[in-house]
Amino acid sequence: MNEYLQSKINRIKRGANRGTYNVEKINAILDAGFIGYVGYIFEGKAITIPMAYGRMGDKIILHSSNANRMLNTLLKTGTMSITVMHLDALVLARSGFHHSVNYRSATLFGSVKKIEDKDAKNKALYVFMEHMMKGRWDGVRKMTKDEFDRTLVVEMTIETASAKIRDVGVNDDPNDLDLDIWAGIVPIKQIATYPIPDTGKPTDMQIPKHVLDYYSENK
Amino acid sequence: MNEYLQSKINRIKRGANRGTYNVEKINAILDAGFIGYVGYIFEGKAITIPMAYGRMGDKIILHSSNANRMLNTLLKTGTMSITVMHLDALVLARSGFHHSVNYRSATLFGSVKKIEDKDAKNKALYVFMEHMMKGRWDGVRKMTKDEFDRTLVVEMTIETASAKIRDVGVNDDPNDLDLDIWAGIVPIKQIATYPIPDTGKPTDMQIPKHVLDYYSENK
Repeated sequence: MNEYLQSKINRIKRGANRGTYNVEKINAILDAGFIGYVGYIFEGKAITIPMAYGRMGDKIILHSSNANRMLNTLLKTGTMSITVMHLDALVLARSGFHHSVNYRSATLFGSVKKIEDKDAKNKALYVFMEHMMKGRWDGVRKMTKDEFDRTLVVEMTIETASAKIRDVGVNDDPNDLDLDIWAGIVPIKQIATYPIPDTGKPTDMQIPKHVLDYYSENK
Repeated sequence: MNEYLQSKINRIKRGANRGTYNVEKINAILDAGFIGYVGYIFEGKAITIPMAYGRMGDKIILHSSNANRMLNTLLKTGTMSITVMHLDALVLARSGFHHSVNYRSATLFGSVKKIEDKDAKNKALYVFMEHMMKGRWDGVRKMTKDEFDRTLVVEMTIETASAKIRDVGVNDDPNDLDLDIWAGIVPIKQIATYPIPDTGKPTDMQIPKHVLDYYSENK
């Protein structure tokens, strides 16, 4: 499947020229971040909660304590949606009306279930952690049975999705181009700064390669 | 009012020690960004859409085209919630279980209405644009009547809210502190890079002070 099927729930109406249903493009947006915004309904109201996620093919992995209200609510309904957005630039036009932002945004809809099987749960936790920082899984103390049991791991299967991408410059009215007004873009990005060791002991340890690699790729 | 009242909808259960209902702290989170995640219910499903916002006291200002599905749905129900989050660090513990992120996150609940009054609408648009970039309003071509009429401006009055802030270091099991495993944080921040002028004419114009100020404050 190269494109998600369009339906009423995921079809892009405003700015359809910026919309895409392409699976690869949507996966690229998901893989460029690890914080998503999960929507759920609590007492008749839509609430949005930011959550860290990992991706494994067409599955989104979330985890939390067993008591997490949101995940338990989602498991009861069996469906969820999650939105991921990266802000790439402020677009400063000559008119306020044509001001915009450049961004990559994806919204996914799907079914959700608890991962009970031990091996599958372990694999999902591995994917989750490696999604945040490649190489970290092998760099930490092994999980205990108690920690494993206290962790709720949830898998969403992406059933449909859409994305919007704006990655062009200023789009002003032709009549405004001669005005004595500055227009342009201010690029925005999320970066990492240099890792800061924990003040706990041991303090003279070298920063491991996987952490320095993360820094180098995101600085 | 210094604290939002706690109720079932905004009370923080998990990690309550990181929760706050303090109005000033929540406003500081809102003022540190301008993209929020608005939740709404469409055909029985919770959907989250990223939106730019401005803040004016206890009001959140959103705007879009008159035809925007989400804002029109919210106006029908009369209520909305919006979540704003800033990611500040990866927290790399000695165990996977104690991995975390530092962040500032706020979720607001309130009533929502369309701003019809001309002066109030103009003021709201001013606040919206100045929230994104201080000084920009006076730096652009004045809005036309047609643009003004085609813009839907919505005001949410914050009725209750809560925030969660994690801004500490690694919180490992005491038993793990002696392990030969590196722990620490990787700070994350959103920055602006140098403004890029539009390729439209005139091209030799100096970048205005308000744009350079924004860059300096966010680089």
